[in-house]
Amino acid sequence: MELFKEVSEGIRPLDQERMKAARTRVDNLTKPVGSLGRLEDIAVQLSGIAGEMFPKADRKTLIVMAADNGVYEEGIAAYPQEVTAIIARCLTQGIAGAGVFARQWGVDLKVIDVGVKGEGDLEGIENRKIMHGTGNIARGPAMAREQAVKAIETGIRAVFDAVKEGSGIIATGEVGIGNTTTSSAVLSALEDIPPREVTGRGAGLDDMGLERKIKAIEDAIEINKPDRGDVIDVLSKVGGLDIAGLAGIYLGAAYKRVPVVIDGFISSVAALAAYRLNPLVHGYMFPSHRSAEKAGDTVLERLGLKPYLDMQMRLGEGSGAVIAMQIIEAAARMMQDMKTFDEIGIVKQNG
Amino acid sequence: MELFKEVSEGIRPLDQERMKAARTRVDNLTKPVGSLGRLEDIAVQLSGIAGEMFPKADRKTLIVMAADNGVYEEGIAAYPQEVTAIIARCLTQGIAGAGVFARQWGVDLKVIDVGVKGEGDLEGIENRKIMHGTGNIARGPAMAREQAVKAIETGIRAVFDAVKEGSGIIATGEVGIGNTTTSSAVLSALEDIPPREVTGRGAGLDDMGLERKIKAIEDAIEINKPDRGDVIDVLSKVGGLDIAGLAGIYLGAAYKRVPVVIDGFISSVAALAAYRLNPLVHGYMFPSHRSAEKAGDTVLERLGLKPYLDMQMRLGEGSGAVIAMQIIEAAARMMQDMKTFDEIGIVKQNG
Repeated sequence: MELFKEVSEGIRPLDQERMKAARTRVDNLTKPVGSLGRLEDIAVQLSGIAGEMFPKADRKTLIVMAADNGVYEEGIAAYPQEVTAIIARCLTQGIAGAGVFARQWGVDLKVIDVGVKGEGDLEGIENRKIMHGTGNIARGPAMAREQAVKAIETGIRAVFDAVKEGSGIIATGEVGIGNTTTSSAVLSALEDIPPREVTGRGAGLDDMGLERKIKAIEDAIEINKPDRGDVIDVLSKVGGLDIAGLAGIYLGAAYKRVPVVIDGFISSVAALAAYRLNPLVHGYMFPSHRSAEKAGDTVLERLGLKPYLDMQMRLGEGSGAVIAMQIIEAAARMMQDMKTFDEIGIVKQNG
Repeated sequence: MELFKEVSEGIRPLDQERMKAARTRVDNLTKPVGSLGRLEDIAVQLSGIAGEMFPKADRKTLIVMAADNGVYEEGIAAYPQEVTAIIARCLTQGIAGAGVFARQWGVDLKVIDVGVKGEGDLEGIENRKIMHGTGNIARGPAMAREQAVKAIETGIRAVFDAVKEGSGIIATGEVGIGNTTTSSAVLSALEDIPPREVTGRGAGLDDMGLERKIKAIEDAIEINKPDRGDVIDVLSKVGGLDIAGLAGIYLGAAYKRVPVVIDGFISSVAALAAYRLNPLVHGYMFPSHRSAEKAGDTVLERLGLKPYLDMQMRLGEGSGAVIAMQIIEAAARMMQDMKTFDEIGIVKQNG
């Protein structure tokens, strides 16, 4: 609880002075003003985060939170529960989606077991189990309040470790059968939107599966009565260990003044939870892709963020965030390597 | 003319059998079916292009066509004409936009002088000058028909060289003060759309400049009367050497069965010209970003392509195409490195 409080209350705003100076430089680089569009905005934001004119984003870490969800019992998932552990392993081996992309670009990959079902360590994965899968939210709370805080602190510590190892940018990812159900439940509770409007097919549910999923979320909210003014209450009652862990990643990154990249639907819901805990976290966040999961757009809208990529992806694992890291690095490189008209000896004028 | 004919008539369709086999494999990789969205479609298209189950896209080349435009005289540009040569040089030095990004990702960069004003070689740039800048399209044709064909063949040869050097994917770029004017003119002529509807502010024209630009294009079409059924006629009368050269890149890449990535507005117009020359070229093309130039969307719609990135960019030079190459490589890596459920010993089923 100490760490959570220290971090969530210790986040400071971006360095406005540095951003103003960065914008001036960006406007004078050898290109028409504004012609690199959102890359320019990213560069300015990176300067505000780092407090430096020439921020770097070359050392990168993807942190994946792996956890199981008790609501699986309700028949809301398209895959068997064992798949959580299997995919977590495949990620570290570089043979599952985000693991492949992380290897492509030399991104460090940390997979953290914050609550996968079953005893014992998974090879290549940090064992930070808080529970062996959560309780079934359709019948009671996912976890106790203290456990949600512990999951958040696990995310915070993962960022601290990555930063200590030299990482200058963090991407978020998750794996956990049933976690679009918990994410929709958290979104519904936090934003007071009926479950039906924010519930999609996840990994590929059929119509009957979708109805079971909506019913499970309706039950979860009915039974647990999460208090939307209390984010920890929402996360612990209808959320998951992965979502709470991800919320911790955003808080930890903002506290350490390191940019953090949102992945898809689940990661966006966690970003929204972190944002409700402390709005200052927003300045440190970057969107990545437009999720194909039903309520993906809704969450990004609530966050006031516009995705860079439209790839119709809905895999999770950080697969979209790792791609977007390349774009963010390009913005940093623009700042480092491009010259101003002045520096190359050209006077800007209309011919 | 021999080369142009041989190449533009020698393009073959994609390998449909291989694409079917690739799709089957993609559907069985360790992820929900369809969850990698457009990356999956890219992978299948790459397989159809290469005629291989495991296509590669790791060795990459950006080809930038540099040329000047006589229509500059009409006061349609936001920058002095000398900037063409300066930016071309900055690209090869890795200090202009696309040059920075190419270096970031180890993309080979070929800048080709297909008609920059002035005598002599530009350091680091291939001298393939066909003219020293085109004629002013508002007063007469940009070039002779033979010169347009020569420019196309220059693009074709640039691709042949890159492929010989081992490149497996090509990105298109250009630099040339005044080339949004010629691109709008080509688009207007090819698609029979009034100039006003396809003319934007380019590098940053004010309202009066924009009116001059529209007037210049209206004059160009009025005076030259390009025949929209004859692409070479359109390119030579109201186009530019860079646009023709780019059209050659698309044709050359399709002929050599190598994927080719479209950049922004100018590059898209050239892609449309190539597509009108031979529709089979379409299978070898990949979009990149949504250009912020006014008619960018129009061209991509005519090509039936949806951009991956929305960065509000309008720099040209291949800056968006080079970023998209990373996404296309990710699709190739997905194919090479991900395993099927079968390969990791999992039977897919609903739990």
